[in-house]
Amino acid sequence: MSLDSHMSNPDEPTKNNHAGSAATKATPTIDVEKPTLGLGFGVSVITRRWKREDLLKRGSLITRGLALLFSFLSFIIMASNKHGGWNFDDYEEYRYLLAIAILSTLYTGGQALRHLNCIWKGKQIFGQRISALVDFLADQMMAYLLISSTSSAISLTNRMREVGDDSFTDSSAAAICMSFFAFLSLALTAMVSGFKFSTQSYI
Amino acid sequence: MSLDSHMSNPDEPTKNNHAGSAATKATPTIDVEKPTLGLGFGVSVITRRWKREDLLKRGSLITRGLALLFSFLSFIIMASNKHGGWNFDDYEEYRYLLAIAILSTLYTGGQALRHLNCIWKGKQIFGQRISALVDFLADQMMAYLLISSTSSAISLTNRMREVGDDSFTDSSAAAICMSFFAFLSLALTAMVSGFKFSTQSYI
Repeated sequence: MSLDSHMSNPDEPTKNNHAGSAATKATPTIDVEKPTLGLGFGVSVITRRWKREDLLKRGSLITRGLALLFSFLSFIIMASNKHGGWNFDDYEEYRYLLAIAILSTLYTGGQALRHLNCIWKGKQIFGQRISALVDFLADQMMAYLLISSTSSAISLTNRMREVGDDSFTDSSAAAICMSFFAFLSLALTAMVSGFKFSTQSYI
Repeated sequence: MSLDSHMSNPDEPTKNNHAGSAATKATPTIDVEKPTLGLGFGVSVITRRWKREDLLKRGSLITRGLALLFSFLSFIIMASNKHGGWNFDDYEEYRYLLAIAILSTLYTGGQALRHLNCIWKGKQIFGQRISALVDFLADQMMAYLLISSTSSAISLTNRMREVGDDSFTDSSAAAICMSFFAFLSLALTAMVSGFKFSTQSYI
């Protein structure tokens, strides 16, 4: 805006003098906006911000993808865990792990699709602030559920392994590992969502 | 700013016509700044912001105090859990619960003291942004540890109660409950810390 008024000065000096009162009243506005108008400084701030937002978007998409992968693996390994006469279905800890793995697969899959859709088409279903808030809260809750199911299954498997070590406990341990990695990815995602929630909608 | 230009219209109609180009070019800047310059509106925004910050501070202090109380109770109940020939020390899940309860007591106690100190004396050990970031991350980690220890202890206690129900399993269950309430309070604190982290240092 200050650029425009500077450019119009040499063309219409008399008109500008006539409108002196309006021009002087407009100065404070220009002063307030100066930081973003200092061209080099403003551009560097904006590009830095774009880069950071891009990094956050990519980072959150990658950790979401990893969480999807790991929870899917945990779900598959636990669901097929029937070895040597043992069945995962007889233990409520394993059923809990399976249920949370399925829930986490659906949640992270849906979230990844939504974010991809948002990146490709630039459309958002909800407002940006609402969506960042929901991400932040839901990621945290899903991470709590994952660590809870993982811990309870670890407790059971550890006790089983004190008696004997076979392919049933091995594949339980594998499912637990995958579930723990899914938790780690989702905890990272929750932190990135927190940062996104904290940095968006300003400037 | 828009008020000023409206008031100058009836006084100097011709000048305004002369400066038509400058006036129309100035409109977008005025529109952007309108909300902060209306005096009543600006004051109400600031007082609302103060109220919200005060509420967040009090809320976070209350949930921290509750987390401190519950983790201390969990620690005491589990540490004195030696009934009918049974000892909590023989089970690693209960030792894990005790360890995390002690850690959580120390952490929430230290945090509550730091925040009280900050409210009374107005001093901050670190910068506001750094301190909000550390709160946000550390609260989340402590909440993950608490839910993890609670889940593993639930799994063990449930299995014990299938065999028999005595004062040992009862006081284990009490300690687990306290630990779970501590988790709930700390999860709330983590969310409030996220909001604080997202709202401070702007405006």
